Amino acid sequence: MTSQNIPSKADIQQRIADLRAQLAKQDLTAIIVPSADPHLSEYLPEYWQTREWLSGFTGSAGTLVVSADFAGLWADSRYWVHAADELAETGIELQKLGAANQLNHIDWLAEHLSEGDSVAVDGNVLSISEQDKLLDAFEANDITLITDRDIISQIWAERPALPNAKLYQHDAQFLAQSAASKLAAVRAGMTESGASHHLLSSLDDIAWLTNLRGADVDYNPVFLAHMLIDADTAILFIDNNKVSSEIAQSLADSGIDLADYEAIQGALGQLTPDDLLLLDPSKVAVGTLSEIVDNVGFIEQIAPSTMLKSVKSDADIEHVREAMRQDGAALCQFFAEFEQRLDKGERLSELDVDSMLIAVRSQQPNYVSPSFPTIAGFNENGALPHYRATPQKFSYLDVEKGAGGLLLIDSGAQYQNGTTDITRVVGIGQVTSEHKRDFTTVLRAHIALANAYFPEGISSPAIDAICRAPLWQAQMDYGHGTGHGVGYFLNVHEGPQGISYNAPNTKERAMRANMITSNEPGLYREGKWGIRIENLVVSRAVANPIETEFGEFLYFETVTYCPIDTRLIDKSLLNQVEIDWLNNYHSQVYTELKSRVSGAALEWLTERTQAI
Amino acid sequence: MTSQNIPSKADIQQRIADLRAQLAKQDLTAIIVPSADPHLSEYLPEYWQTREWLSGFTGSAGTLVVSADFAGLWADSRYWVHAADELAETGIELQKLGAANQLNHIDWLAEHLSEGDSVAVDGNVLSISEQDKLLDAFEANDITLITDRDIISQIWAERPALPNAKLYQHDAQFLAQSAASKLAAVRAGMTESGASHHLLSSLDDIAWLTNLRGADVDYNPVFLAHMLIDADTAILFIDNNKVSSEIAQSLADSGIDLADYEAIQGALGQLTPDDLLLLDPSKVAVGTLSEIVDNVGFIEQIAPSTMLKSVKSDADIEHVREAMRQDGAALCQFFAEFEQRLDKGERLSELDVDSMLIAVRSQQPNYVSPSFPTIAGFNENGALPHYRATPQKFSYLDVEKGAGGLLLIDSGAQYQNGTTDITRVVGIGQVTSEHKRDFTTVLRAHIALANAYFPEGISSPAIDAICRAPLWQAQMDYGHGTGHGVGYFLNVHEGPQGISYNAPNTKERAMRANMITSNEPGLYREGKWGIRIENLVVSRAVANPIETEFGEFLYFETVTYCPIDTRLIDKSLLNQVEIDWLNNYHSQVYTELKSRVSGAALEWLTERTQAI
Repeated sequence: MTSQNIPSKADIQQRIADLRAQLAKQDLTAIIVPSADPHLSEYLPEYWQTREWLSGFTGSAGTLVVSADFAGLWADSRYWVHAADELAETGIELQKLGAANQLNHIDWLAEHLSEGDSVAVDGNVLSISEQDKLLDAFEANDITLITDRDIISQIWAERPALPNAKLYQHDAQFLAQSAASKLAAVRAGMTESGASHHLLSSLDDIAWLTNLRGADVDYNPVFLAHMLIDADTAILFIDNNKVSSEIAQSLADSGIDLADYEAIQGALGQLTPDDLLLLDPSKVAVGTLSEIVDNVGFIEQIAPSTMLKSVKSDADIEHVREAMRQDGAALCQFFAEFEQRLDKGERLSELDVDSMLIAVRSQQPNYVSPSFPTIAGFNENGALPHYRATPQKFSYLDVEKGAGGLLLIDSGAQYQNGTTDITRVVGIGQVTSEHKRDFTTVLRAHIALANAYFPEGISSPAIDAICRAPLWQAQMDYGHGTGHGVGYFLNVHEGPQGISYNAPNTKERAMRANMITSNEPGLYREGKWGIRIENLVVSRAVANPIETEFGEFLYFETVTYCPIDTRLIDKSLLNQVEIDWLNNYHSQVYTELKSRVSGAALEWLTERTQAI
Repeated sequence: MTSQNIPSKADIQQRIADLRAQLAKQDLTAIIVPSADPHLSEYLPEYWQTREWLSGFTGSAGTLVVSADFAGLWADSRYWVHAADELAETGIELQKLGAANQLNHIDWLAEHLSEGDSVAVDGNVLSISEQDKLLDAFEANDITLITDRDIISQIWAERPALPNAKLYQHDAQFLAQSAASKLAAVRAGMTESGASHHLLSSLDDIAWLTNLRGADVDYNPVFLAHMLIDADTAILFIDNNKVSSEIAQSLADSGIDLADYEAIQGALGQLTPDDLLLLDPSKVAVGTLSEIVDNVGFIEQIAPSTMLKSVKSDADIEHVREAMRQDGAALCQFFAEFEQRLDKGERLSELDVDSMLIAVRSQQPNYVSPSFPTIAGFNENGALPHYRATPQKFSYLDVEKGAGGLLLIDSGAQYQNGTTDITRVVGIGQVTSEHKRDFTTVLRAHIALANAYFPEGISSPAIDAICRAPLWQAQMDYGHGTGHGVGYFLNVHEGPQGISYNAPNTKERAMRANMITSNEPGLYREGKWGIRIENLVVSRAVANPIETEFGEFLYFETVTYCPIDTRLIDKSLLNQVEIDWLNNYHSQVYTELKSRVSGAALEWLTERTQAI
């Protein structure tokens, strides 16, 4: 569903010119084009890939600002190299978000615009939280914010239609809780907050709550919809063509009625000032509230379902373990074949890695799709944490005789019984002591978190330093978070937890038992290589507490089963605790996978899980 | 300056009855009595020790709420045991702040009061931040907040006078920057924020900025004053009797004029709506702004001086190192004498520890006073992190034959060349393997932070987990912060940094080079013993960066010089990195102190700094 037609530089220049003509016609000083849709999703339907269509920048995050005499794209450090390339010759300036002295787009606008200026953003792609930030910055400077105009449709003649994939039930054998029961739990959360109504626009929350899945966007098995819930009714706002009569009946049996996707604004317009509407301001678009009457009360907080779905049931976790065994077996097949082909002298590329991975995973039971675009980055490409090889731009895994390099592979799959996400690094050719030092230091960081105990309920950003400490000790660091929540056959990135010391350490981000989180420290040497070692971990209560007077403690159970390349380890840098962790992990990987692979894959598994 | 007269339970009951009579007379539903003064100080002049006078609770933090049929004191876990004791039979209920399901006093009032009720707080002891929280909670429930009545003075017949200690200059030999230069730096901060005026009420900021010191409260060498600064003038509002003509002249030479302490409200009343007043809302009392006209603009942020004084000059740090050598020498004398007297069979108490420490420290050059009340807590008393022995209640260091215990000693001094704060634990009699396991685990936490590297500019709460990880691994924890900032011949507790994972991880709390911070992990077993190992550390840029591509890193240089009791260590629990740190530390302590002690103290130092 990603854009198939790659625009030329001239196309981009023309689109920006058309946009400027619209700004002039509508008497607007500037327009902000975020990467968003009415659901504030990570992966956008093509209809909402406005920022990419206008700028040609294909990164998954970034904000375009265009005025009569300026066009700039704000992107964070993950995208700087890649964005500079894609924006060249378009007239759009890369604004390096996070660089010293670089203002974000909001402060930049507040500084560069004048009193009386007007700035447009499509309210359908602007969250309430982002609108609050814009209003804060603009009000002091008497700049007007306009959110009720659809300017893009006037210049995007062949704008794609919204997607219309059919809904399907999440297979009952993998479900531990009915939609009716989940709805009751959400209503209990509403009661606790004193809300009379609750608006959900986030697609993974809706898929979780209804036990339905869809295919409206790439990678995330979700469908475009809103939900409005009160004490008696729950309405799913969705394109009716997506809903079979069986699913409609099943929804009705769960107490969920159907309405048109476009009817959400009107339904919210029926609320009265006596109502109290619970919503997550970072997950609801301003445009969705366009018809709401004044004086309706809002309760702005994280949605009850976001908390509920982050804590998996024991049954869910058992299914995930099985999905992990399948995924691990597929990876053994991949690595065995990959290494054999390289050993035979075959020339392989980063794109081959992606297609080979999809080939082995798609043979597994309950496979649905990749869970995100494979990142296979060789050497300097691996140093770009969000690199993606394309048919237009990719590298072959070529090394000169006697030389070597590192290939970083970050990939995952959606299975009906679980969502996977794993990063491994493999050496190609003769690796150096520098490769090993970097790899081993990242491994030490990974093990530090994998081995950690921490208090139940601690805000997840607070434990990041445990992971990073070994890297910091070597004066190394990485610019991304250490861990994100992972859905259960849902989005590979979900909250509320996030192990990232720069994120606000609020109570919402508390670590609870039975959350699934990634453990993925890394190291990126620009122009040289990138390293990341990622497993998924389940937070578990310590089984036999030695102490109880200091509260309850959690630890991480690693549930990703795949060897970590011991040929890249400098054992002299590991202490005994770390060596023990690695050997225990490999012993477990062997045990979990040995009956699922055979031939070359079993040989590869056996060899690569040997103790060091 | 602490209250000398301990009230009886009957006194307390009478005072609460008198207060209730006033509430009835003034038609008030309830009154909140915080532990605060118009400067939001930690140590209060007796005049402002209202909460203690009313309740008999002597803890340094706690909030009293009284209504016609309720009296409750909110105190955190540090004080629960102690407060339960002091509040017994007074009719005041202990409200355990931080306990499960215990509301804080604001939410408690919001829940228990009714529409139309009125709550009084003296605006002179209520910060703007706290008022904002009260208004947020009360407005939704239509409860009126009244801050302009002095109710306490109407029932406290013999309320003490405000203190009137004379000001003195911080000795010029210990000063690296003139008051005029500091004032220029503060004005630069005001310009950066766009402020026309700046109000300072925090006493340590004012002492730092003027290079003056006072003795209006215990432990902190500060004086009651406010300052109002604009581009051209700086006015110190202070009781003129405290200011000698020499100091007045010196202030005038630095561009600082004098006005009456009580004139601050009137001066602020002269501001116009064109002015922009910078203030720290947590450090300015509502009452101070009582005459300010509507529509004066506020810039609410941390005061520039709070940031400036947290980063010490290299010259300051050299002076602090010398103060630490003095303090360490005094501690060697203390410990040598203490152990000799115990060995001779003399019966010593926790109070003797305090008096002996003051005796040895006061012989050191530039000694001024203790920097906080000594905590000498034996066995179960040590388990109360804020324990303070009093003539009415203290323990002897008695152990039965063959048994043993732990004595925790947390103490410090103000010297003109530096402020010290150190905690050591010593074994009395035969210590057990449990004592050693606990002590060694706390030591491992201490060493983890002492050895850590971390990125320059990281928010200080984010590094707390590095320290706690070894304790968490043993399913242990402690309920207080790991580190606080320390002033330079100023308050022993100062911001903005604070190594405490529960504190908001804001940018204001960033770790910078040349800050002085405590490193003080602990462990408290209620009814048994308490352990805390505290050194002061200076954050320093790593001298010879191995890497620069990942930014700048800081490490902690330990500047407290005093042996850590190796007889309490279970060496089998330490790894080689930890053993090396300890032996290097003791080698350094010996080198720094050996020429400053003699006789029994030198023998003690030599023995206790032997490598393990």
